Amino acid sequence: MDFKAELARRAILVDHALDSYLPAADAHPSIIHEAIRYSIFAGGKRLRPALVMAAACAVGGDENLVMPAACAVEVLHTYSLVHDDLPAMDNDDLRRGKPTSHKKFGEAIAILAGDSMLTMAFALLSGIGATGKVMSERILQVIAEVALAAGIDGLIGGQVVDLLSSDKEINKQELEYIHTHKTGALYRASVRAGAILSGASPDQINNLTTYADNLGLAFQITDDILDIEGDEEKLGKPVGSDNKNKKATYPALYGLAVSRKKAREAGDRALAALNSLGAETEFLRLLVQFVLLREH
Amino acid sequence: MDFKAELARRAILVDHALDSYLPAADAHPSIIHEAIRYSIFAGGKRLRPALVMAAACAVGGDENLVMPAACAVEVLHTYSLVHDDLPAMDNDDLRRGKPTSHKKFGEAIAILAGDSMLTMAFALLSGIGATGKVMSERILQVIAEVALAAGIDGLIGGQVVDLLSSDKEINKQELEYIHTHKTGALYRASVRAGAILSGASPDQINNLTTYADNLGLAFQITDDILDIEGDEEKLGKPVGSDNKNKKATYPALYGLAVSRKKAREAGDRALAALNSLGAETEFLRLLVQFVLLREH
Repeated sequence: MDFKAELARRAILVDHALDSYLPAADAHPSIIHEAIRYSIFAGGKRLRPALVMAAACAVGGDENLVMPAACAVEVLHTYSLVHDDLPAMDNDDLRRGKPTSHKKFGEAIAILAGDSMLTMAFALLSGIGATGKVMSERILQVIAEVALAAGIDGLIGGQVVDLLSSDKEINKQELEYIHTHKTGALYRASVRAGAILSGASPDQINNLTTYADNLGLAFQITDDILDIEGDEEKLGKPVGSDNKNKKATYPALYGLAVSRKKAREAGDRALAALNSLGAETEFLRLLVQFVLLREH
Repeated sequence: MDFKAELARRAILVDHALDSYLPAADAHPSIIHEAIRYSIFAGGKRLRPALVMAAACAVGGDENLVMPAACAVEVLHTYSLVHDDLPAMDNDDLRRGKPTSHKKFGEAIAILAGDSMLTMAFALLSGIGATGKVMSERILQVIAEVALAAGIDGLIGGQVVDLLSSDKEINKQELEYIHTHKTGALYRASVRAGAILSGASPDQINNLTTYADNLGLAFQITDDILDIEGDEEKLGKPVGSDNKNKKATYPALYGLAVSRKKAREAGDRALAALNSLGAETEFLRLLVQFVLLREH
């Protein structure tokens, strides 16, 4: 399997589905529809939807059947980026090289576009019921898990602790809290959603959960390492100019060598968790390599 | 039935349930839990939850069984107030005589508290499945309807058009769009949620929908009239000092006499819609009188 081609194939399917689920950009009132489409189609890799689909395949399910859930986690992820970028939060002007939602549409519309996407995620999930192809109990369980991952004990809790800890020293427990909540929770919800909707056994769901938790950890540590190495390459840049540098990272708390080891070990645990699953785990395996070896 | 006593009885039940559903105020990270409880327990009349419960009773259901849905619509309503009050939106410093969430906790926490409450509404609804007492299909239908009412074609759409129309003349169609979306959608979702979860027939659901739509209209027109009459009594206040005065109202577009007639007619339609329902519609009937005759 060519991992990047497979990721791109899934991204195209997801983009197509998102385009069909979202109201047209000129629907009334058009500014909010424009704002939603602007952020949704800003060039994301669609990693989380690919995880939903790959988890379905790993337990013998159908990637097309879980498409609304795949889109729901992406819409949810996008909402969190739009709100995190707001002036009152991280105050970012650019995302992926383009003006952030509030720079382009104003703060009120950015807040409301985020609110719309958060709401839409649950509309998409509840809509799976209309297909008649998935047991309602499974859909309800997924809605409960996604709400947990998105809420105060997931994404939002992570963002709150991240905000509270900016400009001050944090310890290893706080660093872990931020990462497991701010990014880990949605990875976990993604694989669980794909698996639960496909009728996975509790064992399969547990293994995929272990996979996702460790994949998320490997991703985060690698991200932190790349930030450091990126800065080293950009010699001459004023130290401390990047607000993000003030934030605690794995290399800052553990050193680079231990951080690399931790990322590798997390990757190994993710791969081990796949062993007892079915045949279609190649994408999930290659994703671990992709995460550990990526350069940006 | 003493309407105010019955409303108060339901409000106490709802407050108790909300208190048990919400994490404690000192749960980690505590600032967001404090902020959520601050807004949820700010003295709301719990009109929407009472509608959920009353709709259940009107179709022979059990008001206790629909309690999580009653709490969900109240949490949703509270989120919308917190976000609407933000500086980028209506920029209100006070609500019910107390500092708004962003004045008390800062803008970032107010945004995140709103996001948490929006997410929590869906957690509460999906949690009804765990009781085993309501068919999953019904719960899924309610989640879909609440997501519709809260989203871009409901609450949020209404707020967008309201924002776009501030400081400019709007016509009758725009006024109606704002009201049916910004306030009407959640009234409608409230009675439908109570009815659907209780296994109501399509006819019963339709009648309650007609009731809610007209109750919402009567409420809104009366609100507009009270605003005008309130101002007349407060002679000496500089004209135009209140930002809200710039907004279009029913009296501004139709005149006071026609507005009063429209409110009365909407009330009559609401009452007529109850005729074919079961016995327990007294609360819903008295609510129409309450809305039409209230003085603040």
